[in-house]
Amino acid sequence: MPVQPPSLPDRAARLGWPLRGDLAFLNHGSFGSVPTPIQNAYDRHRQAVEADPIEVLGRQCEGLLAGVRRRVAEFVNADPDAIGLVTNASAGVGAVLRSVPLPAGARLVTTNHVYNAVRMAMRHRAVEVGGTVEEVHLPLRAVGPIDLSPLLDSIRRDDPPAVVIVDQITSPTAAVLDVRSVVAACRARGVAVLIDGAHAPGMLPMDLSSIDADWYTGNLHKWTCAPKGCGFLHASPRVRGITHPETISHNLGQGFEKEFGWQGTRDLAAWLTIPDALDLWDSIGTAAVRDHNHALCRAGKELLEQAWGVAPIQASTRDAMGSMAIISLPQRIRGPFENPDSLMVHLHDEHRVEVPVIDWEGQWHVRISAHLHNTIEDYERLAAAIGRALKALDATAASSPAPA
Amino acid sequence: MPVQPPSLPDRAARLGWPLRGDLAFLNHGSFGSVPTPIQNAYDRHRQAVEADPIEVLGRQCEGLLAGVRRRVAEFVNADPDAIGLVTNASAGVGAVLRSVPLPAGARLVTTNHVYNAVRMAMRHRAVEVGGTVEEVHLPLRAVGPIDLSPLLDSIRRDDPPAVVIVDQITSPTAAVLDVRSVVAACRARGVAVLIDGAHAPGMLPMDLSSIDADWYTGNLHKWTCAPKGCGFLHASPRVRGITHPETISHNLGQGFEKEFGWQGTRDLAAWLTIPDALDLWDSIGTAAVRDHNHALCRAGKELLEQAWGVAPIQASTRDAMGSMAIISLPQRIRGPFENPDSLMVHLHDEHRVEVPVIDWEGQWHVRISAHLHNTIEDYERLAAAIGRALKALDATAASSPAPA
Repeated sequence: MPVQPPSLPDRAARLGWPLRGDLAFLNHGSFGSVPTPIQNAYDRHRQAVEADPIEVLGRQCEGLLAGVRRRVAEFVNADPDAIGLVTNASAGVGAVLRSVPLPAGARLVTTNHVYNAVRMAMRHRAVEVGGTVEEVHLPLRAVGPIDLSPLLDSIRRDDPPAVVIVDQITSPTAAVLDVRSVVAACRARGVAVLIDGAHAPGMLPMDLSSIDADWYTGNLHKWTCAPKGCGFLHASPRVRGITHPETISHNLGQGFEKEFGWQGTRDLAAWLTIPDALDLWDSIGTAAVRDHNHALCRAGKELLEQAWGVAPIQASTRDAMGSMAIISLPQRIRGPFENPDSLMVHLHDEHRVEVPVIDWEGQWHVRISAHLHNTIEDYERLAAAIGRALKALDATAASSPAPA
Repeated sequence: MPVQPPSLPDRAARLGWPLRGDLAFLNHGSFGSVPTPIQNAYDRHRQAVEADPIEVLGRQCEGLLAGVRRRVAEFVNADPDAIGLVTNASAGVGAVLRSVPLPAGARLVTTNHVYNAVRMAMRHRAVEVGGTVEEVHLPLRAVGPIDLSPLLDSIRRDDPPAVVIVDQITSPTAAVLDVRSVVAACRARGVAVLIDGAHAPGMLPMDLSSIDADWYTGNLHKWTCAPKGCGFLHASPRVRGITHPETISHNLGQGFEKEFGWQGTRDLAAWLTIPDALDLWDSIGTAAVRDHNHALCRAGKELLEQAWGVAPIQASTRDAMGSMAIISLPQRIRGPFENPDSLMVHLHDEHRVEVPVIDWEGQWHVRISAHLHNTIEDYERLAAAIGRALKALDATAASSPAPA
C-alpha cells in the first residue's frame, strides 16, 4: 500500500475550496485554486479599492505594493527591491526577453522540457534578432533527478549562449531541476540566465538569494493559491537597471521598483491579496503543507503505477519531484481517443476527474497534482476511470469478429 | 443657472455604486467605478471559473472569449476578428509599439496632449531604434474643437513619421480630437496610425469601422464600468497579421485572435464581465447615458467657471468635449500648496472631493468627470471647497503685517 500523507492541523481541512463538489481536481498545477479565506481577503481588498479608487490605486498604491513586495521577498528569501509584480510567469519571461541585450544571431538556450509558452516567446524574440533557439534534450530518469550535463555542455561551448532559460519545475514532465548548477555554469561563462520558477513557490522551499540567477520568475496563483494574475519577476542587482516590464508606463526611467509598480490600470486587489495568501500558509505551516502535498502526490503516483501496472518513468524523491508527478498510461488506452485532449475531456465529462493528459515523446501520461483539497480517493477515482476504459476496450475486442 | 442634465429611467438611479457615501467622486475618468449589477456579474463569472477551472479557462476559454469579442465588436462597430482583449490601453499601445516595423532612426509622432504613459512607451521604443519622439504642440480652444493642422502638417512632411499615435479624448486636457482627419492624413501618406481611445468607449459614439485607423485601443473599465483590467486593441486587416500581444504565449503564429485569446493565466472573469457591462448600458440606453453624462459635465463645468470667475479654456460642445472637462483654477489658490497633488490631497482629505488637479502649461486646472453616480451637488461641493480655501487665503493675507 502507498504511504498515507501526514496529517495537518484541523484548520487546513476546514479551509473551504470553491471547486465543484463532484470533481476530483487533479490539476492544481495549471491555474491553481483559491480557498475561501484568500477569496474573502480578495473581496475585502477589492471593496477598499472601489470605495475610494484614487486614494488606493493612486496615492496609496506605491506604499501598498511596497508591503506586498516585502512579504514576497520574505517568502522567497530575497531583497524586496529585487521583486517586481507581474500578471504571470509568462509576462516575467517576456519582460526579460525584451530587456536582455541580444546581439544579431543570438543563440537562446533552453531544454526540451521548456514550457510551451516560453518556447514560443523565445522563438518570437529569436526571429526578431535573426537568432536561434536551441532545446537541449534531457531524458527523464526513474531514479534520482534529471542529469543536466547536456545543458551544461551547451552553456560551456566556445560560443556561449546569449541567454539561458530553464525551469525549476518542468511543466510537461513535473520534474525538479537542479537550477543551481545551471546558474553556476552560466555565471562562470558570463551568460545571462533566467530561471522559470512558475510552479516553484508553494511547492519547493524558496531561496532566491542562494540561487542567484540574473532573473527568476514565479507564479503565486498556482501553489500559493493567490487570485489569478499574481506573479513576480526577481531581478538581481546585476540586471535590475536594464529590466523593464512588458507594459511601459508613467514611471519609465524611475527604476525597477517604480516601473513594475505601475503597469497601467489593472486589478490591484489581486496583488494586494498576495500577503493574505502567504500568511494563510504560514499560519498552517508552509513546510507542513509542502510535505503533505509531496507525500500525497507520491502516494497518488504509486497508487496509479500499481493500478495500471506501469513502471515509474520519473523519480519520486524530494530532489526530483514536488507536488506534481507524471505517470505513464497503459499504451492501449489510446485506442478510442483521437488525442490526449479527447481522453482528458472523457475523464472530466464521464468521470469528473480533471487531469492533464500529456504526449511526451510519443507516450501518453497523466500529470497529477496534490494540494490540500485532494485526498487519496481522487487518485483512486482516476485509477478506476482508466481501468473502466480499459475494460470497455477489452469487451469491445472480445465481441469483435476475429481478424481475417 | 447651468442647465440641468436630462432625466434617465428609474433603474439608472437604482444602480448602486460601491463608492464611499461621503465622497464627491469627480474622477471617474482615471480608473472608472463598477456599479453593483456589474460587480455581481463579475462575481458569478469568477465563481464559475473557480468551480471548474480547467473546463472554463482551458476548454471553454476560446468560445467564451469569442462571445466577448463579438459583443465588443458590436459595441464599437467593428469586425469581431479585429478585436484583441488586453489589460488596458497602455498594453494595447505597447503591443502596437512592439509590432509596428520601426526603421533605425524612426520618427514617432504624437501631440503635447499625449497621455504620459504613452509618451514614455514611445520614448522607450524610440531609444531602442535610435529614433525620436515628436510632440506636436496643439493649443486648447475655448470655442470649438482643437485645430489639428500642426499635426497634419507634421504627418505630411517630406520625411513622414514611422508611426503616429493620437488620443481620441486627451487625458490631461479632456478634449475630443477629430481623429478621422488624422487617420486620413496618415492613410494618404502610408503612415502607420494608432488611435488611443482610452476614454472613448462609453463617452463617445463608437464607430471604429468608419475611423479605419490601423490600430485603435480603448479601455472598457473606464466609462463602460467593466472590472479593472479590461481593454481592447482593434487591428485593421492591413496590420492584423503582424500584431502580437505584449505577452507571447502558446498560440504564437496561430493568428491575431488566438494570440490575444491566451496571454498566460489571468483573471478571465473580468473579461467575461464585459458583455454584462455593455448589456447594462444598453438596457438603460447607451446614448441616453452618454447624453446625461455630457450634460451633467457641462453643467458642472459652467457652475465651476461661474463660481470661480474664470474664463472657459475649453469648448463644451459635443464635438470638443465628452463627459470630462477641464476648468482653470483661480491662480492664487496655488499659494499654500506645494504642487497640484497637494491640492488634490487637500480636497480629498478635508472636503471629500476627489478630482485631479493638473498643471497645464503653467496654469493649474481641475479635470472633472460625470457619470451616473454624480449629481450637480458634487460640483457645488468642489466649488465651495475651493471657495473656502480662497477665503482662508484672504483672511491670512488680511491678518498678516503690511509688507515693509
